[in-house]
Amino acid sequence: MSATRVVALSGGVGGAKLALGLYRVLPPDTLTVIVNTGDDFEHLGLYICPDLDTTLYTLAGLANPELGWGRRDETWTFMQTLEALGGETWFRLGDADLALHVERTQRLRGGTTLSAIVTDIARRLGIEATVVPVSDEPIRTQLTTSEGELAFQEYFVRRRCEPRVQAITYAGAAAARLAPAARAALESAALETIILCPSNPYLSVDPLLAVAQLLPAVRAARVPVVAVTPLVGGQAVKGPTAKIMRELGIPLTPRAIAQHYAGWIDGFVLDRADAAQADTFEVPVHVTDTLMKTLEDRERLAREVLAFAATLARA
Amino acid sequence: MSATRVVALSGGVGGAKLALGLYRVLPPDTLTVIVNTGDDFEHLGLYICPDLDTTLYTLAGLANPELGWGRRDETWTFMQTLEALGGETWFRLGDADLALHVERTQRLRGGTTLSAIVTDIARRLGIEATVVPVSDEPIRTQLTTSEGELAFQEYFVRRRCEPRVQAITYAGAAAARLAPAARAALESAALETIILCPSNPYLSVDPLLAVAQLLPAVRAARVPVVAVTPLVGGQAVKGPTAKIMRELGIPLTPRAIAQHYAGWIDGFVLDRADAAQADTFEVPVHVTDTLMKTLEDRERLAREVLAFAATLARA
Repeated sequence: MSATRVVALSGGVGGAKLALGLYRVLPPDTLTVIVNTGDDFEHLGLYICPDLDTTLYTLAGLANPELGWGRRDETWTFMQTLEALGGETWFRLGDADLALHVERTQRLRGGTTLSAIVTDIARRLGIEATVVPVSDEPIRTQLTTSEGELAFQEYFVRRRCEPRVQAITYAGAAAARLAPAARAALESAALETIILCPSNPYLSVDPLLAVAQLLPAVRAARVPVVAVTPLVGGQAVKGPTAKIMRELGIPLTPRAIAQHYAGWIDGFVLDRADAAQADTFEVPVHVTDTLMKTLEDRERLAREVLAFAATLARA
Repeated sequence: MSATRVVALSGGVGGAKLALGLYRVLPPDTLTVIVNTGDDFEHLGLYICPDLDTTLYTLAGLANPELGWGRRDETWTFMQTLEALGGETWFRLGDADLALHVERTQRLRGGTTLSAIVTDIARRLGIEATVVPVSDEPIRTQLTTSEGELAFQEYFVRRRCEPRVQAITYAGAAAARLAPAARAALESAALETIILCPSNPYLSVDPLLAVAQLLPAVRAARVPVVAVTPLVGGQAVKGPTAKIMRELGIPLTPRAIAQHYAGWIDGFVLDRADAAQADTFEVPVHVTDTLMKTLEDRERLAREVLAFAATLARA
């Protein structure tokens, strides 16, 4: 039976920062982080899950603070040698990071589910929270762009988000079943709130929502759902959120993001830089500093989000 | 058209030492090294070719002199992390070494032949000799032992050659075709001699010979074939040659090895420690120091072997 009190829905870097804050202010085994897998892909024969790995490394205190991805204290011998051998090097893999990809790929080929693998790896990394992929079945975020159809990592890493985005699809998501541990967390009798982390709505959150069983499970939980803005003063903290909103013709405001989630969020956490817009929301708003530069920022924001959620009644 | 003047038949470490000597004393593009692939195996989802890699690293000056396998200036971050993640670590893979395994596996999955991959990698490593797997089709050395049937690396690395060997088979070898570049080298109009490097007769040479097309091509070349002893004073320089000979009930003498190759070798290079046995051979013998501790030893032995071969008329 799940002891989960808080479920966080998260993408990669930005989401993982808040997940870390939640992990540190909550009893750690009461947090479940449900993570986007739309970025996952096969590369060099390896099954790579960037958002899951960022989440695992962040919660384990292993994340690379300079790069924003991968592991700290990393070595790069593999990549340097691969380049000398004429291999593909546009997606950079550190030597330690590579161990996770090789081991995961092996276990997947052996028939273990992705969520069982993540559970075991999380335990081995000393993580007491539950980290779970939204689904054990593959979901692949694909972009229709000014350069044609691109797989997520082709767009995101290889082409550095430069092509203009016209449409985004999530192949496999509609048929993908919610991972059992994700369902269990959302059905936890102890569940108090669901936090939508400050992740890219189109690239990180929508692939989660595209899993048909997710939103019904969120609604059935009957707990307050709070979204935290990924925009600060009309800018994304990191990544192409703002650029994609412009390209898709969406007003570059936190309100537009709240509307994107209309009908299932009960509150919105807005940055102080956007405080003037607070009155335009259809759900209660909490205004605060949402930039998470330090560990203290992550913990403070986590506490504020939880306190705000506690004030909200589920509709 | 092959410019090959010398073909070396080789296994791993010991064979590669003489191959390096030959490479250094010959015009480098006149040497073709045909390498055992019976040790190859799939591990961690990667296609690993220990003897080919030892040969490549040795000829490229990249071999690890302390370990006797793998690369010099290696880092071990991958392996350390894999252990922490609960992965299999009995077969040690350095971070740089891993790049070759990942890249080769990728190219094999893409349909490139093993010999085409080795040719490209050798070129990228700056090797001017031809290095070629005996076959592009898989050969798997398997041992019947006191602990049952063991795949080669299970016996050699995981069980450290401790089980008693009762029989050795080379799965796939009989049907495996000689690699095109190996055939071309043996058919080279410039071919002068074939050197059987000081490799383990049962684990490294026999899987080569088990390729049905090899010996006929060696015989058809009509050039002197010289074998270099892997035994010195009743001991193997490295590895389990002596142990296996005892277990298989074979007299622990260089002569027994020469008899193992009877009918197709034209000369035998014997170590000075075994000079007293020189009269017992049915083929001409050259006695010298066969231990190759230094680079100079390798070059000197290579020169002596070539000079000895030049004195032999092919039967």
